[in-house]
Amino acid sequence: MSQRSAFFVSDSTGITASALGKLLEHFPDTDFKQVRLSFTDTEEKVQAAKGRIAQAHEKDGFRPVVIMSVGNNELRQSLKQANAYFIDLFSLFIDPLGEELQQTPLTGTGIAHGISGSNYGDRMEAINFTLNHDDGMTNSGLEEAQVILIGVSRCGKTPTSIYLAMQFGVKAANYPLIPEDFERGSLPAALMPHVNKIFGLTIKPERLHSVRSERRPDSRYASIENCRAEIAAAEHLMRQLGISMADSTSRSIEELSAIILQKVQQNNQ
Amino acid sequence: MSQRSAFFVSDSTGITASALGKLLEHFPDTDFKQVRLSFTDTEEKVQAAKGRIAQAHEKDGFRPVVIMSVGNNELRQSLKQANAYFIDLFSLFIDPLGEELQQTPLTGTGIAHGISGSNYGDRMEAINFTLNHDDGMTNSGLEEAQVILIGVSRCGKTPTSIYLAMQFGVKAANYPLIPEDFERGSLPAALMPHVNKIFGLTIKPERLHSVRSERRPDSRYASIENCRAEIAAAEHLMRQLGISMADSTSRSIEELSAIILQKVQQNNQ
Repeated sequence: MSQRSAFFVSDSTGITASALGKLLEHFPDTDFKQVRLSFTDTEEKVQAAKGRIAQAHEKDGFRPVVIMSVGNNELRQSLKQANAYFIDLFSLFIDPLGEELQQTPLTGTGIAHGISGSNYGDRMEAINFTLNHDDGMTNSGLEEAQVILIGVSRCGKTPTSIYLAMQFGVKAANYPLIPEDFERGSLPAALMPHVNKIFGLTIKPERLHSVRSERRPDSRYASIENCRAEIAAAEHLMRQLGISMADSTSRSIEELSAIILQKVQQNNQ
Repeated sequence: MSQRSAFFVSDSTGITASALGKLLEHFPDTDFKQVRLSFTDTEEKVQAAKGRIAQAHEKDGFRPVVIMSVGNNELRQSLKQANAYFIDLFSLFIDPLGEELQQTPLTGTGIAHGISGSNYGDRMEAINFTLNHDDGMTNSGLEEAQVILIGVSRCGKTPTSIYLAMQFGVKAANYPLIPEDFERGSLPAALMPHVNKIFGLTIKPERLHSVRSERRPDSRYASIENCRAEIAAAEHLMRQLGISMADSTSRSIEELSAIILQKVQQNNQ
């Protein structure tokens, strides 16, 4: 496997450039060493970046990939004198889009991820809501939730809820399904008025067994028999109520969130 | 202000395409109505997407912007028959990069944000760590933290910590500075062995007053005098110990995280 360096050079956070860096995963035969150079907003910092790019080139034997988002034209041109393969968000995306829109793009720093961004306040409110409604912590305010995730303990509800809030500004509560619920054969009463916005997560018993065993090895809670029984009971309960479900076993929180978001959007239509 | 629709069409989560959508904020004179069409991975779904694009075109009076990440070539060409301005991540970015690398890119779905992604496991572990070490919940395991955020109550420690963990896989603990610490004139004893990985958040008194007032209106806790005194004491303490600081008043969690990440990387060098 060949090694190559990938630099994310930005005059601001570098988040957009790094997000695009996810596309490097389409090339599994190259082992990318990723370096993030945020806040590269002066000629001095551009020179330092060029120095690091040249070093990496010499070390790897391949010219580095540089994914760059630098608004100031002089700095941009200066950086592009390095010997590298450039993916320049301005020349590839922003400037051509400006022609389509017949508008001159803003070129200042911190535009994409500043506090004044389009939905920043909503996202912060959603994070607070989600943390306050994690793991069935409270029933109060559930009517404000846009989605309520349910599922057995350790099936991925918390990180998925937080991702939904942080990335999309979705107020996501989550509620564990516990043995009492299965014995009673119904959801916690507090959830019943909200069935239409409940989404279920499920998981394969073997995977749940392994996750729970890390936490409480050799416990009844983690035993494969108990995991099987809890999952079967949870899925039965969700099917009875017509609750949509997704299996978290081989899905990332990003994938689960995208699935859940589609459901939230349908509800809002 | 003109209205225009922006579609994010992906055969998978659509996260990379949406991240690029942040670049739309460079055009503040257009009010973009953003629509995300994830999991567009069949000809039927492509046809549905084309229908929605045509509808939006008619409604807005402008052809929509379509930011697309569709690996399958037939689906990609089919989608591009719509009347829209296309930003195609494959033709703009992935295919040319493949030429540079002399590799054929993977075109399957779910490559960029799957569970097998390069650092997925680390990120999940970091999220667990961070949630378990929120708000000074425990001192145990602090030696594992890569950064410990400190600051007065409600200055932004929790969302910033979670963002660091979720986005970058950084194990971020956080600790509130409270009146007892100021009276004693020192950090909590448990933190002292870790001073080199502490990062301080501060905030303007007016802003803190407003944030705290939402939570506990007319309390001493939220009063402007108390906010001023707590912040002055916290900053004094941090300066005495040579702790790096950032002001959260006008910075997003993305911006704060990028600043903190630079410090974490310096520590690791």
